[in-house]
Amino acid sequence: MPHPYDSLEMAAIKGPHSVKWSLYGEEVLPLWVADMDFPVCAEVVQAVAARLSKRIGYPQGAGDPELLEAILAQQEAMGLKGLGRENLWLTTSVVPGIYASVLGLTSVGDEVITQVPVYPPFLNALSDYHRITRASPMAIGPSGRWEIDFDHLESLVSPATRMLLLCNPQNPTGRVFTRGELQRLAEFALRHRLWVMVDELWAGLVYEGEHIPFASISPEVAQRTVTLTGPCKAFNTAGLGGGVAISHNPEILARMQKATRGVMGHPNVAAMAAWTAALQHGQAWLEDTRNYLRANRDFLGEFLHTKLPEVKYIPPQATYLAWLDFRALEIEDTHRFLLEKAKVALNEGSTFGTNFKGFLRLNFATSRGVLQEALERIERALRARGTMLA
Amino acid sequence: MPHPYDSLEMAAIKGPHSVKWSLYGEEVLPLWVADMDFPVCAEVVQAVAARLSKRIGYPQGAGDPELLEAILAQQEAMGLKGLGRENLWLTTSVVPGIYASVLGLTSVGDEVITQVPVYPPFLNALSDYHRITRASPMAIGPSGRWEIDFDHLESLVSPATRMLLLCNPQNPTGRVFTRGELQRLAEFALRHRLWVMVDELWAGLVYEGEHIPFASISPEVAQRTVTLTGPCKAFNTAGLGGGVAISHNPEILARMQKATRGVMGHPNVAAMAAWTAALQHGQAWLEDTRNYLRANRDFLGEFLHTKLPEVKYIPPQATYLAWLDFRALEIEDTHRFLLEKAKVALNEGSTFGTNFKGFLRLNFATSRGVLQEALERIERALRARGTMLA
Repeated sequence: MPHPYDSLEMAAIKGPHSVKWSLYGEEVLPLWVADMDFPVCAEVVQAVAARLSKRIGYPQGAGDPELLEAILAQQEAMGLKGLGRENLWLTTSVVPGIYASVLGLTSVGDEVITQVPVYPPFLNALSDYHRITRASPMAIGPSGRWEIDFDHLESLVSPATRMLLLCNPQNPTGRVFTRGELQRLAEFALRHRLWVMVDELWAGLVYEGEHIPFASISPEVAQRTVTLTGPCKAFNTAGLGGGVAISHNPEILARMQKATRGVMGHPNVAAMAAWTAALQHGQAWLEDTRNYLRANRDFLGEFLHTKLPEVKYIPPQATYLAWLDFRALEIEDTHRFLLEKAKVALNEGSTFGTNFKGFLRLNFATSRGVLQEALERIERALRARGTMLA
Repeated sequence: MPHPYDSLEMAAIKGPHSVKWSLYGEEVLPLWVADMDFPVCAEVVQAVAARLSKRIGYPQGAGDPELLEAILAQQEAMGLKGLGRENLWLTTSVVPGIYASVLGLTSVGDEVITQVPVYPPFLNALSDYHRITRASPMAIGPSGRWEIDFDHLESLVSPATRMLLLCNPQNPTGRVFTRGELQRLAEFALRHRLWVMVDELWAGLVYEGEHIPFASISPEVAQRTVTLTGPCKAFNTAGLGGGVAISHNPEILARMQKATRGVMGHPNVAAMAAWTAALQHGQAWLEDTRNYLRANRDFLGEFLHTKLPEVKYIPPQATYLAWLDFRALEIEDTHRFLLEKAKVALNEGSTFGTNFKGFLRLNFATSRGVLQEALERIERALRARGTMLA
């Protein structure tokens, strides 16, 4: 049975308002930056319009009380308990929260550990402000999934190590870390007295496994942790912004606020109205969207398995991102090759960490037809190159 | 003839969504933070709704091209010529731009000059980041208006002076500086090799005099100047945010960006749609609103003249702010007195600079009826206190 997402109205998607669809020009299918091509939940759009029909003056400094309560309820339902409004700090979006955590909890020259590959702003926040990145590469382990190398993690610790940056569900690998993995990470952070920033922005888009908030692992690790999330990925509202830093330890939030005072700006009323409506009325939309994305994920897996077996791919447990390993094809610059020869734009792997040249991140949050067309273009370009193994 | 603003629907104004109307509780008339109680221009609200009916994904990094062109056209019409898109940097709002200018153009311990009284974030940006504030008090001069004391300004300069922060039209005095005054300031800045940040956010709400962009004074001073503006004051959209830093010298913008990288977040699509529509279709609304505000300003002047002559007041040439001098009444804490006894909230003068205790800032952007009621409450409270002179 066809789904409305099968026939998206492209005139509403394409245009100068979208960086995804405008950066590479008309001829290129853009499967890169993490936007979905699907329409925003109708209740969300209506809520913003209703909000703007009142006034658009300054909101309360801490944010709309109704939103704060909705966030607390959402976190409690996921297992993050014992929080009040004083444990929330609304940010303009999640990336500023990443930067604020680094600025507030570390100093110039401090060492910070993170798994790679990882969402590029993790790495940029450290290099932009002269913190030392200690990157721990994940690898495909016995589970057949991308796994943390705990021995390597341990080897990275020095007296200058201050912080761990964690992404769960993980962008770009789509891993949903198990309770056992999170417990080992918590034990690691506590033993070395590290602060932890965990980006849980993708928690609403889990297909398999269960999202476990890192700070729910123990009260001790909660005191060292700031959790970042927002509406932008699950509800496709990146253009409005909106994020929240959550900590059981208000001192962490105070340090983040002090380090960025005045620079960030207040959360905007459209984002807050959208986010509130999404949490209150968006669950049916979200479930439907998740189902469509899961089917896209499986379609992608089947296509690669049958047509492009040289491209290694572990299906993500969460996110609408596929982390693809093109190295077996031995292309000099895979991103550029696909852009020029296949007219498909993916994200270049090396921006997710050193040693990921030859990897690409593919965003499959589009109509089945656009996804299929993009994959067929890639297949044709690779066959024309004459190096296909299959 | 009654104006629609005479009978505002208060249910759409009051509520937890508005810090202006919620901070001091139901009984207090809030004439403090710089929001207008008037509805937003209908074309602006419609444009945001239309924008959200497309997608809400990431916008282009530099902002919507249509907005950038509209800003350039607006600035050119005001006399700021020779600019291209590379001379614009969209910020989340104007305050982050103030902070970015201080962070990008000065270092810890540098001295920065500004006139006082002034919009409090000018002073906060300096103290929050350990710059030394050199405040030059304005005084009521031969013109009968608040004037810059150029001799005092000169006396503040030391080898550590790096920057001048200017507000024009000036918040809170409502001054619109003349070309002669701006020329003297430009000469001062050039002679001492100072950077200049000029906040021109209020340029759309001028009643008398002409707004002259500071950077239009000369090409030389334009190379040392960053101009900040946005839609929030003229079009009453503070809750959406949106601002722009403009400079003929792209190096200034690059320094501001580098100093705040990652922390600010991108401009949101609702603010950009609102701003574009305001510039393209908001002029009739703005003129009508300006006329209403001018009449409120004159009503306020008449009321004070006849009923409260002890309160000194110079009618502002711009803004919807009145800078009121209550010192002759010798009240220990005027802000608190009016809040408790008159149930009217104004802005405390001392936040605009030292030596302004006894001054208050009054926001007259409300219906004539609310303004009158607030003034009558103030009059009654002062009469009940038994210290009225008249």
